[in-house]
Amino acid sequence: MNFNQRFLEICRKQNSLVCVGLDTDLAKIPAFLHRTDDPVFEFNKAIIEATSDFVAAYKPNLAFYEALGVRGLQSLEKTLRYIPDGIVKLADAKRGDIGNTAKMYADAFFRHFGFDALTVNPYLGFDSVAPFLTDESKGVFILCLTSNPGSKDFQYQTDGTRRLYERVAEKVNAWNEKGNCGLVVGATHPDELQRVRELAPDLPFLIPGIGAQGGDLEASVRYGTNAAGEMALFNSSRGIIYKSVKEDFATVAGQEASNLRDLINQVRQAVQQS
Amino acid sequence: MNFNQRFLEICRKQNSLVCVGLDTDLAKIPAFLHRTDDPVFEFNKAIIEATSDFVAAYKPNLAFYEALGVRGLQSLEKTLRYIPDGIVKLADAKRGDIGNTAKMYADAFFRHFGFDALTVNPYLGFDSVAPFLTDESKGVFILCLTSNPGSKDFQYQTDGTRRLYERVAEKVNAWNEKGNCGLVVGATHPDELQRVRELAPDLPFLIPGIGAQGGDLEASVRYGTNAAGEMALFNSSRGIIYKSVKEDFATVAGQEASNLRDLINQVRQAVQQS
Repeated sequence: MNFNQRFLEICRKQNSLVCVGLDTDLAKIPAFLHRTDDPVFEFNKAIIEATSDFVAAYKPNLAFYEALGVRGLQSLEKTLRYIPDGIVKLADAKRGDIGNTAKMYADAFFRHFGFDALTVNPYLGFDSVAPFLTDESKGVFILCLTSNPGSKDFQYQTDGTRRLYERVAEKVNAWNEKGNCGLVVGATHPDELQRVRELAPDLPFLIPGIGAQGGDLEASVRYGTNAAGEMALFNSSRGIIYKSVKEDFATVAGQEASNLRDLINQVRQAVQQS
Repeated sequence: MNFNQRFLEICRKQNSLVCVGLDTDLAKIPAFLHRTDDPVFEFNKAIIEATSDFVAAYKPNLAFYEALGVRGLQSLEKTLRYIPDGIVKLADAKRGDIGNTAKMYADAFFRHFGFDALTVNPYLGFDSVAPFLTDESKGVFILCLTSNPGSKDFQYQTDGTRRLYERVAEKVNAWNEKGNCGLVVGATHPDELQRVRELAPDLPFLIPGIGAQGGDLEASVRYGTNAAGEMALFNSSRGIIYKSVKEDFATVAGQEASNLRDLINQVRQAVQQS
């Protein structure tokens, strides 16, 4: 089964389009965890236990693990083994490099760490993305329009007929021969999200920016999902995992994930009925 | 001292613009090294010993270390400790992410691993690059025009007055307030290299693609260096480290690095005299 089909089934089974970003930062996790041998893993373990009924995916952000060097990657490996089967393991790594190097990154994330999917940067073009696409069961979410202010610097450059992010959306839609391409489109740009959905009607979208970055959830769900109200993943990192930084952090994270799932599903239902 | 000044001094002291790419692949290193405890480190150690008189920089490609997981990063840490002072330690990582994540990557590469410089992807714009620029002693080489065929997919998109890679060159030239910005411009595009050098007359350029990728060395040196024949770094990875895959691999790598240095310096001299 290709990744996009499997992604759809997971979202249906979980009845959720929520992705929890595991941006686990030693400086932000509750103090009492620092007395354990592996605070990063213990934090992630508690978050996963409390949220796994409400989510379709976990998205560890590689930067946070690499910042701790070898120890951080050990915490990541343990975290990945702890994520239950039937939930997407998505590496937020935003890699992009020429073919022979991209192949090594594919080995690193898909084989060594065992991720199901990966975020990739399109700047280097098709031959930098192709090595990630050879296994149809592994998903590749390609950056299209990002949620940060700097997205205006280059992604909006237009050739008169289309902007760079539109060109990326069109190209990726064409690259999706095996059913394993997706796009990253920030929730902070609802109008543009609608346009990207027109260009790529059926691809899965990873939509960051609804939490700490202030994106509009309702508009993002309305315009980010496909015609059937599916094929989108709404990521929240800080808004879930650091909502409480006390002993009850995991319980609170579970409530936040559950609430976010319900909010998204209410919008989906309203849109489908309208 | 800012990175770009230090880079210039290192190149002058070494009388070299050569960068050796440490794309160390277990499948390609000589078989006898597999009997050692840490074949990747033993390979790098021998390459560094044989080439360090002839180079200005070493450029480990992160993908090759990440593909081996925790063990790979351990080999990388040992390799970095082995590179002599006075030679640039450049991480080829091509990272790019929103601000809070970029800060974690900066911590990972500059603090944890102790690299002097890093390659960064510009797709996410200024706020994704800024966290790497806060320490003037650390260099940031931003992807401008890459050496692979896919560079045509997006980097050549024009808004009528300039192409995306030209826009990147102009922006990065403006971002260089602290003297620590550089550009990555592939040797496979000599005419475009000349144009980028016009747009950023004094920035250091990292120029890959002269070896296995078939770039034109003479044109690249002529157009890639600044008016004084300096401020460029010519990378060869496979063409040096895998020139021999027998017991003499390090000796041969030393000869190749020495030859490449001399070839580059001959072109520099000819250009300066003309």
